Amino acid sequence: MTASMNPPGITAVLLLSCPDRAGLVARIAQFIYERGGNILDLDEHVDVRDHHFFLRVSWSLDRFSIPAAGLEEAFAPLALEFSAVWKISLSGRRDRVAIFVSKYDHCLRELLWRHSLGEFEIDISLIISNHSDMAPLAAHHGIPFHVIPVTPGEKAEAERLQIGLCEAAGIDTIVLARYMQVLSPQFTLRYPSRIINIHHSFLPAFVGGNPYRQAYERGVKIIGATSHYVTDELDEGPIIEQDIIRITHRDTLEDLVRRGRDLERMVLSRALGLHCEHRILVNGRKTVIFG
Amino acid sequence: MTASMNPPGITAVLLLSCPDRAGLVARIAQFIYERGGNILDLDEHVDVRDHHFFLRVSWSLDRFSIPAAGLEEAFAPLALEFSAVWKISLSGRRDRVAIFVSKYDHCLRELLWRHSLGEFEIDISLIISNHSDMAPLAAHHGIPFHVIPVTPGEKAEAERLQIGLCEAAGIDTIVLARYMQVLSPQFTLRYPSRIINIHHSFLPAFVGGNPYRQAYERGVKIIGATSHYVTDELDEGPIIEQDIIRITHRDTLEDLVRRGRDLERMVLSRALGLHCEHRILVNGRKTVIFG
Amino acid sequence: MTASMNPPGITAVLLLSCPDRAGLVARIAQFIYERGGNILDLDEHVDVRDHHFFLRVSWSLDRFSIPAAGLEEAFAPLALEFSAVWKISLSGRRDRVAIFVSKYDHCLRELLWRHSLGEFEIDISLIISNHSDMAPLAAHHGIPFHVIPVTPGEKAEAERLQIGLCEAAGIDTIVLARYMQVLSPQFTLRYPSRIINIHHSFLPAFVGGNPYRQAYERGVKIIGATSHYVTDELDEGPIIEQDIIRITHRDTLEDLVRRGRDLERMVLSRALGLHCEHRILVNGRKTVIFG
Amino acid sequence: MTASMNPPGITAVLLLSCPDRAGLVARIAQFIYERGGNILDLDEHVDVRDHHFFLRVSWSLDRFSIPAAGLEEAFAPLALEFSAVWKISLSGRRDRVAIFVSKYDHCLRELLWRHSLGEFEIDISLIISNHSDMAPLAAHHGIPFHVIPVTPGEKAEAERLQIGLCEAAGIDTIVLARYMQVLSPQFTLRYPSRIINIHHSFLPAFVGGNPYRQAYERGVKIIGATSHYVTDELDEGPIIEQDIIRITHRDTLEDLVRRGRDLERMVLSRALGLHCEHRILVNGRKTVIFG
Repeated sequence: MTASMNPPGITAVLLLSCPDRAGLVARIAQFIYERGGNILDLDEHVDVRDHHFFLRVSWSLDRFSIPAAGLEEAFAPLALEFSAVWKISLSGRRDRVAIFVSKYDHCLRELLWRHSLGEFEIDISLIISNHSDMAPLAAHHGIPFHVIPVTPGEKAEAERLQIGLCEAAGIDTIVLARYMQVLSPQFTLRYPSRIINIHHSFLPAFVGGNPYRQAYERGVKIIGATSHYVTDELDEGPIIEQDIIRITHRDTLEDLVRRGRDLERMVLSRALGLHCEHRILVNGRKTVIFG
Repeated sequence: MTASMNPPGITAVLLLSCPDRAGLVARIAQFIYERGGNILDLDEHVDVRDHHFFLRVSWSLDRFSIPAAGLEEAFAPLALEFSAVWKISLSGRRDRVAIFVSKYDHCLRELLWRHSLGEFEIDISLIISNHSDMAPLAAHHGIPFHVIPVTPGEKAEAERLQIGLCEAAGIDTIVLARYMQVLSPQFTLRYPSRIINIHHSFLPAFVGGNPYRQAYERGVKIIGATSHYVTDELDEGPIIEQDIIRITHRDTLEDLVRRGRDLERMVLSRALGLHCEHRILVNGRKTVIFG
Repeated sequence: MTASMNPPGITAVLLLSCPDRAGLVARIAQFIYERGGNILDLDEHVDVRDHHFFLRVSWSLDRFSIPAAGLEEAFAPLALEFSAVWKISLSGRRDRVAIFVSKYDHCLRELLWRHSLGEFEIDISLIISNHSDMAPLAAHHGIPFHVIPVTPGEKAEAERLQIGLCEAAGIDTIVLARYMQVLSPQFTLRYPSRIINIHHSFLPAFVGGNPYRQAYERGVKIIGATSHYVTDELDEGPIIEQDIIRITHRDTLEDLVRRGRDLERMVLSRALGLHCEHRILVNGRKTVIFG
Repeated sequence: MTASMNPPGITAVLLLSCPDRAGLVARIAQFIYERGGNILDLDEHVDVRDHHFFLRVSWSLDRFSIPAAGLEEAFAPLALEFSAVWKISLSGRRDRVAIFVSKYDHCLRELLWRHSLGEFEIDISLIISNHSDMAPLAAHHGIPFHVIPVTPGEKAEAERLQIGLCEAAGIDTIVLARYMQVLSPQFTLRYPSRIINIHHSFLPAFVGGNPYRQAYERGVKIIGATSHYVTDELDEGPIIEQDIIRITHRDTLEDLVRRGRDLERMVLSRALGLHCEHRILVNGRKTVIFG
């Protein structure tokens, strides 16, 4: 086995999907093994209805015979042969994340606190809001904060500014942490499977506005929250994570809002964790989560 | 205190709702206390938005100074003064229940098994089905079983027969244990807040047919079941109980159906238990559950 | 009805326990009604094994005929007749709370954030720690912060200082937010049912030190957290609230610690909420929670 | 690719554990691929503390070039090289299961009902009890039923009879469905990781007898059930599955027993399902569950 060309401790994660066929796991495991990689974790799934194959595999580059920088080029022929959609991420390279927020602070605050504990392998590069309320919180964490008001008729211009900031900062992923504006298809199509939203209901129940009020008036015994990738159809993107809490007739609408806050920030945190650990593959309207 | 006129061990349960005003609890507790009753359990709720009052109180008749048979007459003037909707149930008098079922046996089987253990204070007086499959199970439990086919164009006649059987048997409550026919408003209006259905989704998500398929195709991470009173609007009646289980991308449509069975029979059992212990008050489209 | 002697919007909460007997609810509801009070919420429980009665009732003082300041004196004769343990709390009077903390910040941070949102009807009057790490967080919230090191052989002196600070600040309730020192019986007996701890396991599993390591090594599939009142027996006080999360063989010990953090702060928050809303009665080693 | 030597629709499942090293997945996947197998599902886990590797892989034998009967012999050299503990199961060969039961019927009834629906890929070959109560239920399902009383001083003889019956029936797996006798080490060592028990508490809380009473007296807010493999240490075997339900101060001891029944039968059913789908590997005192 040749000496490795890589600094110690680096791992690679391959996310791949392609039409199913015999030998996929063997060929990919062989690719890694032949080059001195040691598989740390491998998970695969076959959608038997659609005959489609999904894989996540991580391996150590400690004794790998080709440099990390050359990994994509080395793997490309195999991926081409499989007609695969794929991405390789290296543990040294952290996703750059922008958080969009409006006036509710609970989701932003939760993400920043978890980030300060090292829970997410990301850089939070900027925070964008249509209001100035979160400026002190952003400053406390030393993260650039930009106010871009969104007024009727001026949304296109606001989005142009938002995209400009994101591109300048090399943003990989956008988190909508209770951002109360609907993004245009022009925006969302630019970041496919890269915008994560938190919706304050158990989707597809209570689509649209004021879901807690809808839930209260319907008299459900359970409320939920849903984190999903944003697509050009409102509240219809692939669901990443959901959770629920039980409520009773004693809970007022205000109680639902208060108790729902806890749900929203937990569900959004788990979704972002899954995303930045490269554990999510999109399968049409659905997700495959390698937990 | 006068000697009681009642056999020992009898309890009464009052369910009452009325416009809220001061003194309701005091007046009702006083009514019971003055006649030698000992309150075993009292629960009340005020809907602060609608200024409406809901009460469940149970008390022992062991030392009660009026006979159980005269209780309703004695309480009626107070209820009239409060403009209340109310019902008094005695522990000696068991609800008479009819179960409607089609071809899936899991809910019926669960109810019959629990009933055999004494979990429900009811008599299961008859089972009605549009198929003959459940005849042996009904026979094993010694419960009268009637097949009433429901064919297009003949539903009115089928319902006429069903109502005839229920009336002849003095049925109080009807349980739809995965009964796959929609009842007409003529039927449902005859049994207000007395028909309990199990819907195999987390309502209001996936209303209507094939909810597991809808859930599978939407890619939700949680599926649910909902038990509710039947009204003349399909799947819109007041919700009694809901519960959920987590699923993953590995679960096929068949897995959802299989795992959902467990949810359905548990949720329906809990709903029937709450109903027959007189723990449910209907508040418009919602329920108040005194658990 | 006489004009009220009280400012509008004040409510009273009575927590009471006594030997069970007939007429308790009627007599207490009558006491309130006769003086012009309107019951907002009433919940009672009878421990049928011990024949003991537990009650929580809240009522509006808007039209009450005696001043709030005279309420305890007015109620005392009834309580004496019932041999009751009881407490009346007024909505204008907030509990004064001290938080004890060591080096983990998640519970303290959660409580301070919720407090800033107005979730708890309390004043957080002081924070005491055996380390200085939390000083900036306390300063950010403007709450007095005291470092009292606890060294072997000097615990008695440390507790003397702690008690001095608590008494000077008129502290009602002490929250141990992952405070890593065991309090002496001299301390705990001074604050019966007034010290709330969070233990990072599903008690009584994994009593004592390092419960996550114990759980990891036992291979449980579920971990928990428990909030309880502190008594002079370690980890044996009456349990207020517990919750759990599912884990798998993939979770490392570090994962348990990380995921347990979320559980601990949620469970402790719920326990403090129940306590400061006067919803807890202690029944020997157990609690009655009027949720 | 050679024509297969196997009837269509047969799948193989390999469960394997061995010291971790590079190339394990590649070598095993290659073994399958070279012989024309198509991997349906592969899951692996590395215990990073103990440097131990765990694998479950299933594949179709439809185009496999060696006969199913020769599979173990063909794989043996690879397993030897890896110093592996391993087992290959074929979908055509169903585990033969014995159920031991005493007087509570809920777990037995649940397993028999699920089995009748085809949920478990097993044969239930015999039912053994120390009482005769379950004879009619066994007869209804057409399963041989044996009463073997267990009296003090005669346990060794009883176990000799039990083992004789199990050996005569070629039993692979024994399920203790609330069997109220403790098996001797002589018995349990004969069936390592092949006896599944249901304990009616959240182990390790409330080890030993009367766990619901212990839970009731401790005043916990959550009760649980635990299914585990039986070892020669009582209640200490590797945990397969656990679940919980919330309780309140209103729940009597009888309520805990009643509500716990639902938990027990669900948890035991899930454990048996995992076992008979060959999804469990034992790792010392713990299990690896490939769900």
